[in-house]
Amino acid sequence: MDSIFLDNNSTTMLDDGVIRSMEECQKGRFANPASQHEFGRSARRALERARDSLATHLNLRVDDQCLFTSGGTEANNLGLFGFFPPESRNAGFNLVSTSIEHPSLLAAYDWLSLQGVEIRLIDPDNLGRVDAESLLELADSQTRWVGCMAGNNETGVLQPIERIAAGCERLNLPFHVDAVQAVGKILFDFSLPGISSAAISAHKIHGPVGIGALLVKKDIPVSPMLFGGFQQGGIRPGTENLVLATGFATAIENAIGQLEDHQLHLSTLRDDLEHRLLNAIPEVVVNGSTQFRLPHTTNLSFLGIDRQQFILAADTQKIAVSTGSACSSGSSQASHVLTAMNCPKENIDSAIRFGLSIQNKTEEIQQASARIAQICANLRSGKLKGGNSH
Amino acid sequence: MDSIFLDNNSTTMLDDGVIRSMEECQKGRFANPASQHEFGRSARRALERARDSLATHLNLRVDDQCLFTSGGTEANNLGLFGFFPPESRNAGFNLVSTSIEHPSLLAAYDWLSLQGVEIRLIDPDNLGRVDAESLLELADSQTRWVGCMAGNNETGVLQPIERIAAGCERLNLPFHVDAVQAVGKILFDFSLPGISSAAISAHKIHGPVGIGALLVKKDIPVSPMLFGGFQQGGIRPGTENLVLATGFATAIENAIGQLEDHQLHLSTLRDDLEHRLLNAIPEVVVNGSTQFRLPHTTNLSFLGIDRQQFILAADTQKIAVSTGSACSSGSSQASHVLTAMNCPKENIDSAIRFGLSIQNKTEEIQQASARIAQICANLRSGKLKGGNSH
Repeated sequence: MDSIFLDNNSTTMLDDGVIRSMEECQKGRFANPASQHEFGRSARRALERARDSLATHLNLRVDDQCLFTSGGTEANNLGLFGFFPPESRNAGFNLVSTSIEHPSLLAAYDWLSLQGVEIRLIDPDNLGRVDAESLLELADSQTRWVGCMAGNNETGVLQPIERIAAGCERLNLPFHVDAVQAVGKILFDFSLPGISSAAISAHKIHGPVGIGALLVKKDIPVSPMLFGGFQQGGIRPGTENLVLATGFATAIENAIGQLEDHQLHLSTLRDDLEHRLLNAIPEVVVNGSTQFRLPHTTNLSFLGIDRQQFILAADTQKIAVSTGSACSSGSSQASHVLTAMNCPKENIDSAIRFGLSIQNKTEEIQQASARIAQICANLRSGKLKGGNSH
Repeated sequence: MDSIFLDNNSTTMLDDGVIRSMEECQKGRFANPASQHEFGRSARRALERARDSLATHLNLRVDDQCLFTSGGTEANNLGLFGFFPPESRNAGFNLVSTSIEHPSLLAAYDWLSLQGVEIRLIDPDNLGRVDAESLLELADSQTRWVGCMAGNNETGVLQPIERIAAGCERLNLPFHVDAVQAVGKILFDFSLPGISSAAISAHKIHGPVGIGALLVKKDIPVSPMLFGGFQQGGIRPGTENLVLATGFATAIENAIGQLEDHQLHLSTLRDDLEHRLLNAIPEVVVNGSTQFRLPHTTNLSFLGIDRQQFILAADTQKIAVSTGSACSSGSSQASHVLTAMNCPKENIDSAIRFGLSIQNKTEEIQQASARIAQICANLRSGKLKGGNSH
């Protein structure tokens, strides 16, 4: 029985071309891009080529910044804390965002809240979609930052980024977009007026773990979180990572260069998976909007089946899926996203996230659907449950 | 003419065995170590194997922590800020350290100072060595942290870590050691009583750029700098980097497993380089202690020759050296280390850092010495200078 990896929202497998680009880079005997000698200068040139490629593919304009970070978590943290330096944290300011952000923003909100920043979060509707106007209405003269994800990591539901951006442009508020799950899956145009910063990550699009970026519009000041050398203008110091940046650039080039083909492949597989499961298993329901959704994600509830039992049973059948964000799945807490959507408890208790990638094949979807139908039948009849309890 | 890389304190070239270990890991189709399925669990096991290997080689005891970071800069920052959470920063506390720390601590001190922490720094003597007792005398009842590097990145001079640790143990003060340049070059025993935390980095010992670690003794609380998922106990969230951790572990195993052989190789090359240059060039002097020094580093002044002109001339002769830390070499400022040592201005103006690695060969030292003697002769006679001014 072949393993089938349907948890690509947690991480993706490295692309062979990405691996090759990093291996070639490693062979290049490059040095520290901050060094003055030829080993360092050639590393600097290669690093800036990678950065330029990222910038071009994400439609950055001249003097917009692409600050490399250690990943999406740091990019989101910097995109938030960079606008709330310590002296601003106890000054009666607030921020406006949603209750369905990734833990790398929600946990950071909690921390800022302890230091005096008021956190104003809006819930989505029961399809998982935030209303732009209601979100903007939370802003007032003390608002210093607005944040919203482009596409949700658990449900894939797309948020009205364009409308929020237009509102922030009108209100002259910085607007940070968590684009970690969206980049490479939908068109993301950083040049959209009103967006001031965006977080992206390589390992969600078959690039390496350990690198992400905070994109920042021209002339928007960002306070550093890390302190050290002069690298990246001192805003994000530390030895710059040429090998991972090269892999990141290759991953972005692949994902955005073939975006339409990938979207078609992903949504075809995703729709096929949904169709097969909905047909085979009467208790399956889709959580969240199917109209406004990333092409690679579906969140399904298998009503009456415990989500943890499902994960374990799927694992024995060599199918990798998850109950939600890997960043929170170590806990047994219910999904904060589905809870905020006001989903029924039985949906939440039985919700499974499926994340597809361009490496998945049609046959895998067929096989996975068949195995899952059998898993559900077994779990319902108590076979696996009974087996486990012995 | 072959290139000769003598700037190994800024970064080292990847070891072939490290590359192989990372490539094998990449082929393993591992997933996010935070995921519950077998792809994730096998990644978790491999990650913990890498962490255990690091812990064993650095003599961590049961329940000591090895927190992976994005590198040495983040490890030092976390090792400092982790002991100064925001609520402690305006409470009249101070920290005690030295004026010759790496920029990743000095810049962080500057930032903490703006928020109310008093920074008490001691200068070294004119051999670059800090007096442990004088440093400890700076501490009082309001001291909350003591920090000192094990070996200086610019001069290689070793600091009296054991004596400072013993004093901190006696005074019950947390003591952070920046061991980034020292690990793998000298014996570093994290179990030494009195040390509470230490920063290390992979790319100084032929491991990958992009990963370091903060080692923390059992039961010592560290406040996070990044907020997000539950990874690494929530103290350092973000998707854990199995590939780089594996490369880091291999690099540590190589460096510490063959420590005595490497030390002999490095110090033999370094002494040979010094001997040849001192003999061939009358104006060469060694900056800093030659008695207490890392085996791979020498800081030499070529009196009467401008350090920037030297770097450029050496670069044309395919020799990579530096004027100091790559983290500060983008600036034209004089070395803060040599300045704190109260070196004469002519030493500072002409100081060059040589950093050797186990990849350097005896023949390279011979060739480099001969080329450098010629460079100095040319620069003194104004040939290169005259050439440049046209």
